[in-house]
Amino acid sequence: MRIAVDAMGGDFGPRTTVRGVAQALAANAEYSATLFGPSDVLYPFLEALPASLRDARERMSLVHAEHVVGDDVRPSRVLRAPDTSSMHQCLLALSDGRAQACVSGGHTGALMALARHYIGMSAGLERPAISAAIPSERDGRCYMLDLGANVDSPPRNLAQFARMGAAMASIVDGLACPRVALLNVGVEPGRGERRVRDVDALLRSSPSSGFDYVGFVEGDAIFSGKVDVVVCDGAVGNVVLKSSEGLARMLGQRLQQTFEHSWRTRLVSLLARPALSRFREELDPVRYNGASFLGLAGTVVKSHGGADARGFSFAVRRAALEASQRLPERLSEWLVGE
Amino acid sequence: MRIAVDAMGGDFGPRTTVRGVAQALAANAEYSATLFGPSDVLYPFLEALPASLRDARERMSLVHAEHVVGDDVRPSRVLRAPDTSSMHQCLLALSDGRAQACVSGGHTGALMALARHYIGMSAGLERPAISAAIPSERDGRCYMLDLGANVDSPPRNLAQFARMGAAMASIVDGLACPRVALLNVGVEPGRGERRVRDVDALLRSSPSSGFDYVGFVEGDAIFSGKVDVVVCDGAVGNVVLKSSEGLARMLGQRLQQTFEHSWRTRLVSLLARPALSRFREELDPVRYNGASFLGLAGTVVKSHGGADARGFSFAVRRAALEASQRLPERLSEWLVGE
Repeated sequence: MRIAVDAMGGDFGPRTTVRGVAQALAANAEYSATLFGPSDVLYPFLEALPASLRDARERMSLVHAEHVVGDDVRPSRVLRAPDTSSMHQCLLALSDGRAQACVSGGHTGALMALARHYIGMSAGLERPAISAAIPSERDGRCYMLDLGANVDSPPRNLAQFARMGAAMASIVDGLACPRVALLNVGVEPGRGERRVRDVDALLRSSPSSGFDYVGFVEGDAIFSGKVDVVVCDGAVGNVVLKSSEGLARMLGQRLQQTFEHSWRTRLVSLLARPALSRFREELDPVRYNGASFLGLAGTVVKSHGGADARGFSFAVRRAALEASQRLPERLSEWLVGE
Repeated sequence: MRIAVDAMGGDFGPRTTVRGVAQALAANAEYSATLFGPSDVLYPFLEALPASLRDARERMSLVHAEHVVGDDVRPSRVLRAPDTSSMHQCLLALSDGRAQACVSGGHTGALMALARHYIGMSAGLERPAISAAIPSERDGRCYMLDLGANVDSPPRNLAQFARMGAAMASIVDGLACPRVALLNVGVEPGRGERRVRDVDALLRSSPSSGFDYVGFVEGDAIFSGKVDVVVCDGAVGNVVLKSSEGLARMLGQRLQQTFEHSWRTRLVSLLARPALSRFREELDPVRYNGASFLGLAGTVVKSHGGADARGFSFAVRRAALEASQRLPERLSEWLVGE
């Protein structure tokens, strides 16, 4: 299992990607990785890896890629740019079989445009969707899609996203009959936008044996643990994901302010530190880092731009897990076989 | 300033509404209230008010309303129901001038349908929007609208919502030049759904002197304190609001679990309790309870169905504040005068 990594993507570039890859490889001796980027930039980071990651280091190789796709790139332009960037090169490695999965923390739109160009769609699937596992109550999680691969998706595509999400929960997590829901402004039949009602009608008119379509849910169901897959248009999913990040950050800041309020609470804060860091760790978005590009003919995972090394390692592990389960092929079989 | 209150709305009915009204009245000697509901049900709750609220009690009167609008009502049917419900009656009191504002914790769709029927729209405004103040970083807040009064709103209406939100921030909070943004999947021009781009074009083509249109923002801006008003379609706003509630609840549960993890953290939790309850209090959604129905010719505020007495008192105070500022009339003047 070799993973192609865009070592230059994300807010921190090789400072986090090189160590993150090493940490992921250290967790599984069967993984190896190829890092793409300017070799004179990457090499010192590889050399600086601590002795504890020496074994993982042995399974990491470098391939020189001169350029970096900037965060201000236009997805429509990235296809016309020379293919010498680290993002281009790692997708090329996936497309010609030198790697089984690809991870990047770079610009989402550019990565999606290049992935569609080099990897293409799985047979029978029309559009890709971006999906991520969201932590939910009772230590559960919920796959949410689409998180922004498409806006203005027609009902036919949204119904297919429901099946893709169900297939992922079934194939990757082994759920026998995933509970799948449509995000809406209310749960009663007939509520919401015309498009959402059309998707509901489509899902009801072609029942599936592979999952349990439970109908509409409201926003709180994403975190309640009541469903395994929540489907929405990319414009909604992206806004929900970003607003959740914003809310979690604000709550974290206010929690800190609260404890720094006086010497008494500062003292308590010292005592509470282990509990609070366990809390942060459990909710740490990095534990769920790694958004999957579903529907492509190969495994491509987007790491959050702000992820640290540990976060990046989760994205690498997610990519390796999906590729080892042959998710792209089985997703296509699952959907076509219905 | 007399406020008409649907004392039967919300998950807890008069158990929370009666005391909530009394608390709001205790905070301002110029407020009085009329409570609508079955008098034999309400009377014992009024009698049970503690001595500390005796003065407020003097400014509360009861008007008998036989029926209650259930939470399973269809908004389209509520108009054909007899007007003997507490929700009907308190809106009638507002429409015929017996009260200056109306508060209910009942079914949002039913309340909106009845409010449009009895109160009507302000001159020059086409559609109402639901707006609430969301707590943001640096102890700020952000008005978000529409939270679900409409789905599939045309661009013309969304542009009007932007102006309505700006007018509210200006009139109620005294902001000289509110920063107004459109919620989108990215900040670059040309991103997102066609409809959102059309609204952006509308707002750019008719610049306003009363507010600063800053363009697109992503979901995290709702909580970041960078803007004062965030505008979106009701389908998106509702999902963001509900998912934020779900996330905050999940985080609260996990924080508690963390502290209950061992005897050591249970001890710390005892010590940390004052700080943690201040944290919860500051973030308590009840402090921001009260969603305003903007665009109507009168002040109608929806209290969260799950609000406790304190939460309900905030909704009552919000209604009194908006009515004392003559928000409906000035909103209409602000928009027509542009």
